[in-house]
Amino acid sequence: MSLLTVGTVAFDKLETPFGKTDKILGGAATFISMASSLLGVKTGIVSVVGGDFPEEYIDLLKSKNIDLSGLEIIPNGKTFFWEGKYHNDLNSRDTLATELNVLENFEPKVPEQWKDCKVLMLGNLHPLVQKSVLEQIDIRPELVVLDTMNFWMDHTWDELMTVIKEVDVLSINDEEARQMSGEYSLQKAAKKIMTMGPKTVIIKKGEHGALLFQDERVFFAPALPLEDVFDPTGAGDTFAGGFSGYLASTEDYSFENMKRAIIYGSALASVTVEKFGTDSLNELTKERLDERLKRFQDLISFEMKL
Amino acid sequence: MSLLTVGTVAFDKLETPFGKTDKILGGAATFISMASSLLGVKTGIVSVVGGDFPEEYIDLLKSKNIDLSGLEIIPNGKTFFWEGKYHNDLNSRDTLATELNVLENFEPKVPEQWKDCKVLMLGNLHPLVQKSVLEQIDIRPELVVLDTMNFWMDHTWDELMTVIKEVDVLSINDEEARQMSGEYSLQKAAKKIMTMGPKTVIIKKGEHGALLFQDERVFFAPALPLEDVFDPTGAGDTFAGGFSGYLASTEDYSFENMKRAIIYGSALASVTVEKFGTDSLNELTKERLDERLKRFQDLISFEMKL
Repeated sequence: MSLLTVGTVAFDKLETPFGKTDKILGGAATFISMASSLLGVKTGIVSVVGGDFPEEYIDLLKSKNIDLSGLEIIPNGKTFFWEGKYHNDLNSRDTLATELNVLENFEPKVPEQWKDCKVLMLGNLHPLVQKSVLEQIDIRPELVVLDTMNFWMDHTWDELMTVIKEVDVLSINDEEARQMSGEYSLQKAAKKIMTMGPKTVIIKKGEHGALLFQDERVFFAPALPLEDVFDPTGAGDTFAGGFSGYLASTEDYSFENMKRAIIYGSALASVTVEKFGTDSLNELTKERLDERLKRFQDLISFEMKL
Repeated sequence: MSLLTVGTVAFDKLETPFGKTDKILGGAATFISMASSLLGVKTGIVSVVGGDFPEEYIDLLKSKNIDLSGLEIIPNGKTFFWEGKYHNDLNSRDTLATELNVLENFEPKVPEQWKDCKVLMLGNLHPLVQKSVLEQIDIRPELVVLDTMNFWMDHTWDELMTVIKEVDVLSINDEEARQMSGEYSLQKAAKKIMTMGPKTVIIKKGEHGALLFQDERVFFAPALPLEDVFDPTGAGDTFAGGFSGYLASTEDYSFENMKRAIIYGSALASVTVEKFGTDSLNELTKERLDERLKRFQDLISFEMKL
């Protein structure tokens, strides 16, 4: 069981109604790999950082058994930086700064030992970077999952379409699904997106849960109702990492197992949002994850004879 | 098994992105009683209409086995009228007209034969009208469910609090729960509302489903993802009627059975929104309801060993 992910490893500077941070560890590949590795999956990152990326963060990722042989460090470059401020309801945010830095000319290189990975998770990045990683894998992975966002639809639609038609699972949020399909109904949106390539579509609805579509089948998992959401940053990536990681850990890619994978992704995402950045995921123990999964089961389990 | 409801029986005039209507049959008690009666429950209405209320609508309700002995008809009065226009996303709407008419001086009278009803569903109305109905029931019903809205919180807070402390279940939407409790987190909101009287709180989130809270327990049911939502009018009332009706039909008021009741309410609400007003509920057969319940079960059923 192995999972390779490509995505940002970044500095985030965040402000929520509950507090603010200096530059802290963030990025899609960071959350994805931490979630996957927590599930006992051999996990590797393909990404790039600058010489300003602290040894401390490298050590943290390594301590989580994340393989960094695919993490390029450009000594005289600067790490990708994102600064954002969340509104009071935490459902929307303003981007205050985006500095691409070393990401601007990023040419991903998949290490030799990762060219037979079982699951490939293409985190939110330029579609041509995602495509380049997919093309470097010698044997087609058993599962390829892709995450993207509206920015790439606006600016690199054609490139996105060429990579999307190669993947098994697309993971996007509700607004992005509507934009991509031109359909308001999420049911119709998923159907249309399935004609673009992915056999399976996950539509993330933030605090309102996530929908899993495949052929005529639909599964829904709510987000865990939390007393407090502290910082939503990384929730979507954690979800995607938990979903892909669970499938990698079980090597069972059936629809029934994808349902469980959605629950794992949702449970892990519910942990991420409890503190700033990766803090909460970093402290997560097997026991607390099990307790969280149990709460999930209680939340949506019922018996009904028809 | 018997359910009595008090609420509006009304004329609605609706405009959605898909079409518009003249005055059609609407009102909380109409949807509640149709949902409850569909589940085989002996169902009665306490309400008032004017001399302009057509015989055809009376016949329709009677044909659904709804007891109208508590429906007062004021020959020289006019029936309550509401006109609304939905925005493109169907999640918000503008009220274009509200004419209270015969509702302005409504003094509800519970017929003798209903003074021992098992379940009482207090539909959205002035809290003193709700209270008056509750006080006319001789033997405390086994379950009292109350629905209300922000209007009554704004204008009749004290009266609302006196009736809320007498009920078992409160059913409101997410924004109303936030307003009532002063808490943004729905988890916290439900906890606070439970200190105001109701042991059980249902928070309706429209297309995002519904949460059921009791003590420390939470259950979540999504709304069924539909290809098209045509007209959301009456969805919340249908949900409340299906929930209360299912409990009345089974006479089992446990938390486990309330979960099933939520599923029934959601399934019935998903039927209501498919056509204008009561049209879709009117045509609903047992077979189609079972098929809808089956889709619900598929949507949220999963197996996970922990």
